[in-house]
Amino acid sequence: MASNKYNDDFLGKRAANFTPLTPISFIERTARVHPHHTAIIDGDLRQSWGDTYRRCRKAADALIKRGVCKDDTIAVLCPNTAAAVEVAFSVPLSGGVLNMINTRLDAASLAFILDHGEATVFMVDQGLSDLAAAALELADVKPLVIDIEDSTLGEPGAAIGSLTYEDLIAEGDACGQRRLPEDEWDAIALNYTSGTTGNPKGVVYHHRGAYLNGLGEGVEWALPHHPVYLWTLPLFHCNGWCFPWTVAAYAGTNVCLRAPEAGAILDSIKANNISHMCGAPIILNMVTTEAESRGEKLPWPVKMMTAGAAPPAAVLARSEAIGFDVIHVYGLTEVYGPTGVCAWKQQWNELPADQQAELKSRQGVPYVVQEEMVVLDSDTLQATAMDGQTMGEIMFRGNAVMKGYLKNPEATEKAFAGGYFHSEDLAVVHPDNYAEIKDRSKDIIISGGENISSIEVEGVLYRLPCVATAAVVAAPDEKWGETPWAFIELAEGQSATCDEVIAFCREHLARFKCPSHVVFGDIPKTSTGKIQKFELRKKIAEQLRD
Amino acid sequence: MASNKYNDDFLGKRAANFTPLTPISFIERTARVHPHHTAIIDGDLRQSWGDTYRRCRKAADALIKRGVCKDDTIAVLCPNTAAAVEVAFSVPLSGGVLNMINTRLDAASLAFILDHGEATVFMVDQGLSDLAAAALELADVKPLVIDIEDSTLGEPGAAIGSLTYEDLIAEGDACGQRRLPEDEWDAIALNYTSGTTGNPKGVVYHHRGAYLNGLGEGVEWALPHHPVYLWTLPLFHCNGWCFPWTVAAYAGTNVCLRAPEAGAILDSIKANNISHMCGAPIILNMVTTEAESRGEKLPWPVKMMTAGAAPPAAVLARSEAIGFDVIHVYGLTEVYGPTGVCAWKQQWNELPADQQAELKSRQGVPYVVQEEMVVLDSDTLQATAMDGQTMGEIMFRGNAVMKGYLKNPEATEKAFAGGYFHSEDLAVVHPDNYAEIKDRSKDIIISGGENISSIEVEGVLYRLPCVATAAVVAAPDEKWGETPWAFIELAEGQSATCDEVIAFCREHLARFKCPSHVVFGDIPKTSTGKIQKFELRKKIAEQLRD
Repeated sequence: MASNKYNDDFLGKRAANFTPLTPISFIERTARVHPHHTAIIDGDLRQSWGDTYRRCRKAADALIKRGVCKDDTIAVLCPNTAAAVEVAFSVPLSGGVLNMINTRLDAASLAFILDHGEATVFMVDQGLSDLAAAALELADVKPLVIDIEDSTLGEPGAAIGSLTYEDLIAEGDACGQRRLPEDEWDAIALNYTSGTTGNPKGVVYHHRGAYLNGLGEGVEWALPHHPVYLWTLPLFHCNGWCFPWTVAAYAGTNVCLRAPEAGAILDSIKANNISHMCGAPIILNMVTTEAESRGEKLPWPVKMMTAGAAPPAAVLARSEAIGFDVIHVYGLTEVYGPTGVCAWKQQWNELPADQQAELKSRQGVPYVVQEEMVVLDSDTLQATAMDGQTMGEIMFRGNAVMKGYLKNPEATEKAFAGGYFHSEDLAVVHPDNYAEIKDRSKDIIISGGENISSIEVEGVLYRLPCVATAAVVAAPDEKWGETPWAFIELAEGQSATCDEVIAFCREHLARFKCPSHVVFGDIPKTSTGKIQKFELRKKIAEQLRD
Repeated sequence: MASNKYNDDFLGKRAANFTPLTPISFIERTARVHPHHTAIIDGDLRQSWGDTYRRCRKAADALIKRGVCKDDTIAVLCPNTAAAVEVAFSVPLSGGVLNMINTRLDAASLAFILDHGEATVFMVDQGLSDLAAAALELADVKPLVIDIEDSTLGEPGAAIGSLTYEDLIAEGDACGQRRLPEDEWDAIALNYTSGTTGNPKGVVYHHRGAYLNGLGEGVEWALPHHPVYLWTLPLFHCNGWCFPWTVAAYAGTNVCLRAPEAGAILDSIKANNISHMCGAPIILNMVTTEAESRGEKLPWPVKMMTAGAAPPAAVLARSEAIGFDVIHVYGLTEVYGPTGVCAWKQQWNELPADQQAELKSRQGVPYVVQEEMVVLDSDTLQATAMDGQTMGEIMFRGNAVMKGYLKNPEATEKAFAGGYFHSEDLAVVHPDNYAEIKDRSKDIIISGGENISSIEVEGVLYRLPCVATAAVVAAPDEKWGETPWAFIELAEGQSATCDEVIAFCREHLARFKCPSHVVFGDIPKTSTGKIQKFELRKKIAEQLRD
């Protein structure tokens, strides 16, 4: 009874009905359909989609003329300027693989990345030329170095390259060469993890995933046509969570910002009619605090997509009060940034604010374009009970998942064991199928046989007005095995005592969960702002030894 | 210098990072994330996404148990009821290929389709059982016949099947068998063209295109979460332009309607909080006229996506006045319904209404998910000048293009000649890159060496308040070669004379373009409402002979 009439040869793929998926399509269409619409605002620059596309084509042609081959790595060290948006298209158009590097790294880490990725071109914003020069001293590779000049930069550093970014563009022809992917599985980008645990790993993105997640961001956010998107999220974080591609697909406007300072963000929202922005909860907190101190509200509701940590309830309440409309998403570099979302339900609108905040702090469910985001037992891969209690590991499966780690088959196999990408984030699943992170695998505290979620304790600490940053880690304890220690960075002009903090915790937590010690002072963070708990554990070891 | 580090074997596709694209994903996610949200409203029925998904799984399991194999054709003859929405998922879940058949066809055409598609199952709404029985008498195939009972039907016809649709569902297990596509190029649906010219052709859709265009509709319409979608467009038209899949992806609600009557549509908009609907301009006209006669406006702005013909300026103005927000799209069965759109530009909002209407009547540009919609010389495939004058043929290329015509390699090769799908619609391209159809290839009128667009003449005729339907075709003429004849169906209660019509045309058209004859009476249409100009040409031949 089986039939193959639907698979006759003449029904196969051909030029008319099959094109490899690539986000390059988005800029090509938008440049044709909306050539005069503003693509980029950066300081005094207002650049149309037509001009942006022509500049990207010229840069791609110039790179090819200068010898860039298919799958060459092109490293870029640049804050959120117009160039950082353009390379999201010009580098793929050249057939190169875009490696945006974290601008907060030290020279040694930078050199490691340049060498590991085998960069053949290195574009450097002139505000970062000293750092880049130091890295090049340490690196083995000798890439073609290109200086990105930027008028928004007060005092540029020294030129360190063979030519400037504008020279490169001038060398190219807008109707010249370009390389579209022959296969949608081809690499489009290389993004190094921040290395909270061990050496950075090079996460390889494919064109297919970049296309799908580029659209996927629009679906989850129900994006309108022509969003005006403020770049408060670094473009070196998972290619800005794929948003250069999303903004192109929706014919929006990229509003650049060299540094995400609260005042500048608030000013830009008003000056540029910002409709959408992304970032960690700290950005939300900063801007809200600034607005409060100015006695201002946002001039219109601004959509904010936040990830990196669950937004604390207090921050949510305050930011929504001044006019932010917050969506909480969740992801990792390996899944193109966020591809999990706390999809909002209409009936939640009727709940009290604190319950809404609690619901919104959950990591939730997969994006429409991601097949699965599930909580499984790390070893058996069995689904955990949907009881809001049983811990498991969040795992992903779908089309917005990396190809793997560059030149690292071992780490790749480990991350993909059993057919899922393993996030290493520990979570529960609630009866409504929404996941909630309870801890990073390594950060769980087991005290007297009871599990303590450091996140829960941190959540309580954040309710103290004096707390700017809080981190809770396990300290070894003779009696209990482990006890939680709290590390606190105080907000400016604030003070507190250990006893006050502990007393507050006892009001809000089961006794066994309360910190046994409180340490005030700076908290060490990675270049991407993740708290380095292993450094805190070292501090504990030192204190216990003393 | 070429490198293959990005294509190492361990960076290949695997279960964790590659899933064949299929719209089945949309219902599976929405059933998990929004199980209690209403999926379908049909008369008194309100059915959640969780229940809808379970019913689809049960039907799929039952079909497999009854012997349905991968790539079996499952034909469905059903108006826009709950069952017609469910089969968009249950049939693909069984591995079958969904063949929704036009309910307005005659028995012989139906029999042709059943035989050509080799249907192994035939589901029939009981309102259509007489027609289906007649077709089965004529057909060679002996499919399993399933009666779809429907409570919204006043007087059901006789049962003609071996079991009912509800029996089928009762046979299945919601956790039983299902077949997900092994390859996203697998067939998902078979849609027969309406056969304006010759025998119907079976257009084969692939899962990849259904997934992408399902999302693509959302992108073009900037869909919100949870749209409430009224089924005024037949589900047998290109699988309802992919909207069963779109509505699932956006966790919306399908509001069913057995027949698209103006009063029922208007009542449903109000009763069910309709936010979105689709259909030909005739639907827009009908509902607007009904609202005007009731002295009502729409209770809130309703988004209307229209295609099939350019919406006449007068209809646009009236429908927008009562509260429709109209988007004009363009497509054909072969490209999954509309995948061209008259993408609106913000600056057009400031133009006078008639200019807006003129701009909106253009077919426009490709969808974001469709790579190309271009106007080329039919033979040389050279792009036509962007002058709004030079005629060419609209052609498509991209991922929302059919696999080809079932068992018809000749027609497939012809349609795909030169690497593009040929629409046979003749159009110009304006300097802003927007295409505008000037005529179907066969409908152009050449009079005294001058080309006359029958659409242009029809556009003028539609401005007459007395005109319900107008069609202009070429009549042979000794002196001029051809002259345009106008066929007019008058609106109810209206009257007009030939001289009045011609006088009106002379006010608004160059003399040579004005109809030489005007014929009043019914205009023959295909089952999908397309005017059968070849029948009009026959009438002309008869009149000229007499």
